[in-house]
Amino acid sequence: MSRLVEVTELALRDAHQSLLATRMTMEDMIPACEDIDQAGYWSVECWGGATYDSCIRFLNEDPWERLRTFRKLMPNSRLQMLLRGQNLLGYRHYEDTVVDRFVDKSAENGMDVFRVFDALNDPRNLKRAMEAVRRTGKWAEGTICYTTSPLHTVDKFVELAQRLKEMGSASICIKDMAALLRPQPAFDIVRGIKEKCGEDTIVHVHVHSTTGVTLVSLMKAIEAGADIVDTSISSLSLGPGQNPTEALVEMLEGTGYTTKLDKSRLLKIKDHFAQVRPRYADFESKIVGVETEIFDSQIPGGMISNMESQLKQQGAADRLKEVLAEVPKVRKDAGYPPLVTPSSQIVGTQAVFNVLMGRYKTLTGEFADLMLGYYGETIAERNPDVIAAAENHAKKPSITIRPADLLKPEWEALDKAAKALPGNEGADEDTLTYAMFPNVAPKFFAQRAEGPKDPCKGAAPASTAPENPGSKPADDGKGPITGPVTYDVRLGDKTHKVTVQPA
Amino acid sequence: MSRLVEVTELALRDAHQSLLATRMTMEDMIPACEDIDQAGYWSVECWGGATYDSCIRFLNEDPWERLRTFRKLMPNSRLQMLLRGQNLLGYRHYEDTVVDRFVDKSAENGMDVFRVFDALNDPRNLKRAMEAVRRTGKWAEGTICYTTSPLHTVDKFVELAQRLKEMGSASICIKDMAALLRPQPAFDIVRGIKEKCGEDTIVHVHVHSTTGVTLVSLMKAIEAGADIVDTSISSLSLGPGQNPTEALVEMLEGTGYTTKLDKSRLLKIKDHFAQVRPRYADFESKIVGVETEIFDSQIPGGMISNMESQLKQQGAADRLKEVLAEVPKVRKDAGYPPLVTPSSQIVGTQAVFNVLMGRYKTLTGEFADLMLGYYGETIAERNPDVIAAAENHAKKPSITIRPADLLKPEWEALDKAAKALPGNEGADEDTLTYAMFPNVAPKFFAQRAEGPKDPCKGAAPASTAPENPGSKPADDGKGPITGPVTYDVRLGDKTHKVTVQPA
Repeated sequence: MSRLVEVTELALRDAHQSLLATRMTMEDMIPACEDIDQAGYWSVECWGGATYDSCIRFLNEDPWERLRTFRKLMPNSRLQMLLRGQNLLGYRHYEDTVVDRFVDKSAENGMDVFRVFDALNDPRNLKRAMEAVRRTGKWAEGTICYTTSPLHTVDKFVELAQRLKEMGSASICIKDMAALLRPQPAFDIVRGIKEKCGEDTIVHVHVHSTTGVTLVSLMKAIEAGADIVDTSISSLSLGPGQNPTEALVEMLEGTGYTTKLDKSRLLKIKDHFAQVRPRYADFESKIVGVETEIFDSQIPGGMISNMESQLKQQGAADRLKEVLAEVPKVRKDAGYPPLVTPSSQIVGTQAVFNVLMGRYKTLTGEFADLMLGYYGETIAERNPDVIAAAENHAKKPSITIRPADLLKPEWEALDKAAKALPGNEGADEDTLTYAMFPNVAPKFFAQRAEGPKDPCKGAAPASTAPENPGSKPADDGKGPITGPVTYDVRLGDKTHKVTVQPA
Repeated sequence: MSRLVEVTELALRDAHQSLLATRMTMEDMIPACEDIDQAGYWSVECWGGATYDSCIRFLNEDPWERLRTFRKLMPNSRLQMLLRGQNLLGYRHYEDTVVDRFVDKSAENGMDVFRVFDALNDPRNLKRAMEAVRRTGKWAEGTICYTTSPLHTVDKFVELAQRLKEMGSASICIKDMAALLRPQPAFDIVRGIKEKCGEDTIVHVHVHSTTGVTLVSLMKAIEAGADIVDTSISSLSLGPGQNPTEALVEMLEGTGYTTKLDKSRLLKIKDHFAQVRPRYADFESKIVGVETEIFDSQIPGGMISNMESQLKQQGAADRLKEVLAEVPKVRKDAGYPPLVTPSSQIVGTQAVFNVLMGRYKTLTGEFADLMLGYYGETIAERNPDVIAAAENHAKKPSITIRPADLLKPEWEALDKAAKALPGNEGADEDTLTYAMFPNVAPKFFAQRAEGPKDPCKGAAPASTAPENPGSKPADDGKGPITGPVTYDVRLGDKTHKVTVQPA
């Protein structure tokens, strides 16, 4: 009589990315795989996001080997990954054939469900990856990043879902990485999608738990017809992570909804990660409990600490309030991007600059790119005066075409450069590693044969600061801005020495 | 257009009782009082429960002085207390005129709302206290302890609410101290009460957050018509505590319900307790995150650790599984009491005895009393064979009358004994302190003039083990059971040397 609600388990990817700075080793995940495989999940998110970067940067693990191991250990499960659209798992736009190769190789190595998103919700940045997934016969999930602003209405989200559906999404994901999705909009958006895209449209809801309200949002989403929801096993849940899987199961007991999860398996998975988690104490997120301030400030907690440290470097720690008031203005000028990596850092740093040097007297290169359309389209028009300032600063025009259309074919060059590196094993997978992380890949290739390194041994706590919710470690590849004033600008867990001058 | 949902703030009582072993000093609460008073709460729970005991046992604070201080600092607020019916704040039944005095004095010193409950849900154990409250003109809230068993149906809870309403309850509280109240029964019980007792019956819902599902339960209770809900400021929330106040406020945003809480005040209250909480690190509950096992085991986490330590003392740690399987049987034989203090310890210890010595070969005095009706009536009939064993063990008959009806007037004797103690100040309040805590009061009276003691200084961690959710420190007054086998039986945070012999 009950309607079945399907569940995606996040323990192997987003949970430890959000709670333990993506540091969990394959060794610590392997013992849980059989129980996860047998518990009755719709899918197991286990790859993508920041895990690829973390594997080669911190763990000396080959991410492709990790994927193949998951495939072998969880033969009954849909493996799921998070894919940043045209950015793949890196930090720039890639030319289309690189996107195709990445998707082909991921599918070949065992990936089933590709959750494809773009930080700006620009569908053009998802399109190629979605097409590539469909060509492999795998599951392409078009994703809406949820955020709040005067422009982000229920209707707008439903419109976006319609576009994603037209692009061939097998399911639509509502992705709420900042835990901003309250119960009522959760209900309204899911209902809107079902009504406009068809009741048979599969809606998949992903929420974090930072603000403490989102298990209720899952309940309302389910009441509105959501088909699949994302949770994480309780011992890797809450805080900037996600809602506990077991709580979801119990919440639905006696309602008209049910999961098909095996509670005895869940208990084993819980016990395993409860035992493993203390090893990663140095990497634990500093955000614990519940933070609701973001609903009003629109500023994620991690973004505030970035701005605080930037201000402190300039002896201007007392100006945080001005900066916090500046953020919404900068965000509005930039066309209301969702405040997630990288847009949260780009907007936050620009707000700091505006307060310290005068509004838009100095622009970061990234902010200029954002204003000029090099990250993609934003939901609202961007401020023409600031666009003009950005053109002037960056000495390049604003664009309206899809950013990746500016790129020339690059696979051959990447492949040649990658194969020249000591330790490269000659596979396309290695070329992809090099393409996404050109500064980390050489060291990784050279050391790969030494096998996995335990990040919990000898790790200096200072170098292992917890990441912001939803943040990803940035690659070393980004060039600094030059000029006479020097700032440390933190993008993900990488600190850039940034030197700028007033215009 | 929205319906107003009222809120009770628990920070000053149940939050620190559940999270910090009731150790928070008045000094650490005073700075938050103005913001709490101005935030727009329906009531402020700040007294009763284990706070009275903790004041005199650990903090050298006069609980009555604490109450008067709250009254002075929060002139605009309804002050609320938790009152254990005929037990008052102690651990035995008191004769009616003692109950009357306690209520009179509490009202006189500033209490407004009396939440009156009985661990067995026996209305006869609430009746006198409720009448006393009504006579003072204060708010009498009749309370239902929520639990689960084959007998605890929605209809039964609604029936109990009807009885409490007939007894003159100004509001009905559903009290879910073990976080067992799932969303659907939350909805059904509230709806049932509204339908059977009248839509204008004020329903007040109290839940803990241990299992992670109860914020959803509050949402469903509100949808069903609940008028007032209990939460605690976020920096003193979650785990075995309660749901965060701020999350409740945000959860309702955009729905047809609203609170009238002032978010800027909430932020100040949050910041205050976030700053204070680390001082109490030694007293932090070991239960963090989410525990859902209780839904199936029916055994609160703290009860399991009690039983584990009892088994360990007997070199029988390997028999925990048998004991866990025994608990539901003992609970059934005892008429399905809710498993809260003291019934959880009584049932748990008996289950240990049953496994080690044979079923009901040995009875604790408390278990015999429970079987014989000396705690009150249970929802189900108790097992007649076990009643017979209890009569045989305790050498007294089972009773069906209200336990307090066995008591002779005792005020004069208590008053005389109290006044004879050095440091007694001659007020009825001191007599009540002595009546409830005869073994602690003498030392407290003698030391009172020295003023508050900081529990965080020089406290040996071993003596400050976190209490179970919902547990209260037991008084020294209980006599041990005698016989050849010796156990340490833990009731609340007091360990009894208990020696028994097989029958």
